[in-house]
Amino acid sequence: MTLTICTYDWVPPGPRGFVRDIRLRWACGEAGLEYDVRSMPFDDRQGPAHRAQQPYGQVPFLQDGDLTIFESGACLLHLGEKSETLMPLEVQGRSEVTQWLISALNSIETVTVPWWFIGLSEPAENPLDGWMNGRLDHLEAVLAGRDWIAAGRFSIADILMVDALRIPRDHGALEERVALKDYVARGTARPAFVKARADQIAHFEAADATRETARS
Amino acid sequence: MTLTICTYDWVPPGPRGFVRDIRLRWACGEAGLEYDVRSMPFDDRQGPAHRAQQPYGQVPFLQDGDLTIFESGACLLHLGEKSETLMPLEVQGRSEVTQWLISALNSIETVTVPWWFIGLSEPAENPLDGWMNGRLDHLEAVLAGRDWIAAGRFSIADILMVDALRIPRDHGALEERVALKDYVARGTARPAFVKARADQIAHFEAADATRETARS
Repeated sequence: MTLTICTYDWVPPGPRGFVRDIRLRWACGEAGLEYDVRSMPFDDRQGPAHRAQQPYGQVPFLQDGDLTIFESGACLLHLGEKSETLMPLEVQGRSEVTQWLISALNSIETVTVPWWFIGLSEPAENPLDGWMNGRLDHLEAVLAGRDWIAAGRFSIADILMVDALRIPRDHGALEERVALKDYVARGTARPAFVKARADQIAHFEAADATRETARS
Repeated sequence: MTLTICTYDWVPPGPRGFVRDIRLRWACGEAGLEYDVRSMPFDDRQGPAHRAQQPYGQVPFLQDGDLTIFESGACLLHLGEKSETLMPLEVQGRSEVTQWLISALNSIETVTVPWWFIGLSEPAENPLDGWMNGRLDHLEAVLAGRDWIAAGRFSIADILMVDALRIPRDHGALEERVALKDYVARGTARPAFVKARADQIAHFEAADATRETARS
């Protein structure tokens, strides 16, 4: 059964390379899972057709036979069941991977995503600075002692954690945190990440011409 | 094997009833799973002993035999495997429950928790108001059509989503959202929630006397 990763048909240049379908592309690439890409109209993302599949008007969502799954974290847990490359089989390892995947979603992104969002309007002071720095310091201490976040090996937890850390990295928040910087560098150097990012950017760029035509 | 829910020995009155061990107590209560409660010193929560178990100095974490798991979402997924009361057995239902549990963690709490945190300092305007209102509107549309969030039945996804919505509710953000208000009322009326909340409050209150003695 072919997997289908659903994403927008187009996004503006800013988010290209960061749209969360990259997490699913990356996971499939690591595991050698084939997939198609289905495009949903960006301009209709708040319409009923899109929201029937993803209630917040976001992407990605994943189709696997009769199943449709939204939330990139849930999609990664689903893909993790398909390949030991993504998720260990033994109980302790599975538990660690699940724990750290959820930690990236709820202890790191719960701070870093709104920190980034608030920063877009360039306030004199970001009210989340202190909280975010505390969280990143804690995570720095963990990653100072290991190459990958869970179970002594690469897994879907790293796909999520590395991707989550790209935004703070690109906004200067990892400068003094060598272990986190090295960790993001290690993750994003993996061929499956490099290909996922390039494929996503190519996908959105390919739509530029169509939109230009439609508007001319 | 007895489960052990690890939480602080004491917290100030403000967070009592909201500390996230309530999610684990609630789940165990629904499923009839016995558990012990282990207390970790609140005053040492940033020390190495605590952070060896929970890297951010937070609670809860769960012990189940040789496994120790932090992140309430990961603990709920673990408990979900123990009882069909918490998590359906069939593939479609499991997938929906996992998806909505993660949605509560990463699409709702990623906005509501920092919104609440920023609100504590009573700014003239909360920069997350618009984003949070959009998310809650989307969720209102979903819950207008169903009693429980996933798989047509109560599950760990509701434990997480109902608990996540208590903070916006208590800060007035659900006033115009009848479906969400009713949903939170429905969830928090369940006997297992009522008992979990009472047990947590009693646990922290019991430590008040000890702390008074220690300081006198």
